[in-house]
Amino acid sequence: MTIRVPVVEKIMSANDRIASQNRARLDNARIYSMNLMASPGGGKTSLIELTIKNLAELLRLAVIDGDVATSIDADRAASAGAVAVQINTGGECHLDAVMLQSALRQIELDEIDLLIVENVGNLICPASFKLGTHKNVLISSIPEGDDKPYKYPGMYRGVDALVINKIDLLPYVPFDMDYFRRGVEVLNPGLLTFPLSCSTQEGLDSWISWVLQQTQSNRII
Amino acid sequence: MTIRVPVVEKIMSANDRIASQNRARLDNARIYSMNLMASPGGGKTSLIELTIKNLAELLRLAVIDGDVATSIDADRAASAGAVAVQINTGGECHLDAVMLQSALRQIELDEIDLLIVENVGNLICPASFKLGTHKNVLISSIPEGDDKPYKYPGMYRGVDALVINKIDLLPYVPFDMDYFRRGVEVLNPGLLTFPLSCSTQEGLDSWISWVLQQTQSNRII
Repeated sequence: MTIRVPVVEKIMSANDRIASQNRARLDNARIYSMNLMASPGGGKTSLIELTIKNLAELLRLAVIDGDVATSIDADRAASAGAVAVQINTGGECHLDAVMLQSALRQIELDEIDLLIVENVGNLICPASFKLGTHKNVLISSIPEGDDKPYKYPGMYRGVDALVINKIDLLPYVPFDMDYFRRGVEVLNPGLLTFPLSCSTQEGLDSWISWVLQQTQSNRII
Repeated sequence: MTIRVPVVEKIMSANDRIASQNRARLDNARIYSMNLMASPGGGKTSLIELTIKNLAELLRLAVIDGDVATSIDADRAASAGAVAVQINTGGECHLDAVMLQSALRQIELDEIDLLIVENVGNLICPASFKLGTHKNVLISSIPEGDDKPYKYPGMYRGVDALVINKIDLLPYVPFDMDYFRRGVEVLNPGLLTFPLSCSTQEGLDSWISWVLQQTQSNRII
């Protein structure tokens, strides 16, 4: 451990330094940005598609998609009407600030109001790597089960908002919402939550209004 | 990279060496073992519970549960009737051979026929770390979506069997089974698959029979 810890600390402090630079670039361009995290299949790409479709007439959107492989997600974001950049991490299980820095160079930042970064599908490692975005948003998904806050506490602790996706599946799977919410409350008291379904679009309006309001406030300040 | 690659290689070769020692210990004790991997909420613990309940009269079972936090999974396995050991990895996003080595010391190996190792919920990192088990088994889950083989190829490439869980949710979510299976076939031709539902228990018999047959063959050899 005496060897390992300083190395880890150096990596994290280098990452944080570049994350600060990313934030400065985003602020200079008056871009509001969020880092969207979830398990594989939690619904990140579907939520991004719907966000683009609902806000494309009001905001200029960019999406940066992190995946181990393929450009499936960036292609979906581009089809929905956003500027889209794909990052393929190879084997890496999370995005880091350097990857975001490189991706930002591929976007005309002055032409963007809202940037959504879709992190790699993973409930553990993305929590440890700041990117420099303004908000960290986690998507939980009903069929994943109600014990996830208890089992992946690091992720729930560090986020600014929580989307509870696939609520249309509540009748078909065992999920105790009270137990789930108690776990969230212990880790992140008062956390803003958006229960919704990307399939039926129930609850979507609150999410869209929040994203719009946050982005507009950012441009007024 | 010239600094980083040798370090990574050393870690992996140390891991592989200990994985071989784990295998030798398991073989000496005539234990058949599998490493069960999936996304968070894919159904690892539910499948383990059902496997224990169906085989507890025929086999002596042990479960080693890897989680970032809590002993929820090991408690469930113990309640179902198995010897259960919990590994809390702290922040680590996967099990490695050293963790399994430590956990094996807590089990009376001569009293066990079948060991199921439940890896940390993650579709990326567990694929890179051999544990020394006889079979690697992946659980996919219908609500995760049909694009997972394309997006997490490393995991699908390295496994000996694939459980396709939550088939009872097929009527309620978009999932193109042909697209999914084509992705699997490219990465892992002829892979043995078990479509089933831990909820309704449809398809469970084939899985149970296979596990029993594998374990009994191991004891006869």
